[in-house]
Amino acid sequence: MQLTLYTDYSLRVLIYLSLNRHRTSTISEIADFYQISRNHLVKVVHNLSQKNYIISTRGKGGGLVLADDPKTVNVGKVIRDTEPNFHIVDCFNETTAPCSVEPLCKLKGILGAATDQFFQVLDQYYVSDMLADPETGEAIISFDPKISNFLAQSEEEANG
Amino acid sequence: MQLTLYTDYSLRVLIYLSLNRHRTSTISEIADFYQISRNHLVKVVHNLSQKNYIISTRGKGGGLVLADDPKTVNVGKVIRDTEPNFHIVDCFNETTAPCSVEPLCKLKGILGAATDQFFQVLDQYYVSDMLADPETGEAIISFDPKISNFLAQSEEEANG
Repeated sequence: MQLTLYTDYSLRVLIYLSLNRHRTSTISEIADFYQISRNHLVKVVHNLSQKNYIISTRGKGGGLVLADDPKTVNVGKVIRDTEPNFHIVDCFNETTAPCSVEPLCKLKGILGAATDQFFQVLDQYYVSDMLADPETGEAIISFDPKISNFLAQSEEEANG
Repeated sequence: MQLTLYTDYSLRVLIYLSLNRHRTSTISEIADFYQISRNHLVKVVHNLSQKNYIISTRGKGGGLVLADDPKTVNVGKVIRDTEPNFHIVDCFNETTAPCSVEPLCKLKGILGAATDQFFQVLDQYYVSDMLADPETGEAIISFDPKISNFLAQSEEEANG
């Protein structure tokens, strides 16, 4: 069971811009940071901009910023807005021929109820919750240098 | 968000064998019924047999039958047993390089909790529930001719 790479990258962009929300960022910088394809990110950023999650400005001093406070950006809504469909199995797909057993099969309803519960959890969280300090419950919002030190320290600890 | 075709077809095989559980069935017959690839089904049936969901016997009078009463075959367990992984996003995949933001990101925990809720629904259902008559709550277990009449009738109604 997977969400698309498109949704994965959309969440990563929102996380990055939350961590760097007091300045503008660029697509290349985000691609470098996550070591992911710049071409993929172009489409992801375009979609996030069209759906008003981020503001993209061109020219000198331009770049990407979050459109809203990460405390108000709901994780469930982001995933609904970025995932191309929720065809958990093929019988959800109305463009394909109906399954031979569909008239008497209840699987679709059961999987639909399960998906609703999946989103009931996600709807409780905001982008800021993805970055909250578990000790204080406070959002970690400044990425550099506090977070880069934190990352370096975590890496040192992991390497013993 | 999708389950693999592998899981989709596994559920269809169990449904078909539940509807025809008083006789043996063949892979070709199931492929014809659902109009799906016989080659795909060979692998699906092999896996279901290895995991003791079905019994496959060779030779004259051989074929496929359900190993257990559909009332005892849990839908959540089937999906856990057939889906290759639950890497909802890439940070669940331990074989790829860790995400740069992982040390401070809570997304994995949030998506993990959502997936748990997804399964909490599925764990309440059995294969027999996928085929229960909503009027009587009784499982529809004989496929031919009762179900084929039912299918024909439903199709007529749908076509007005």
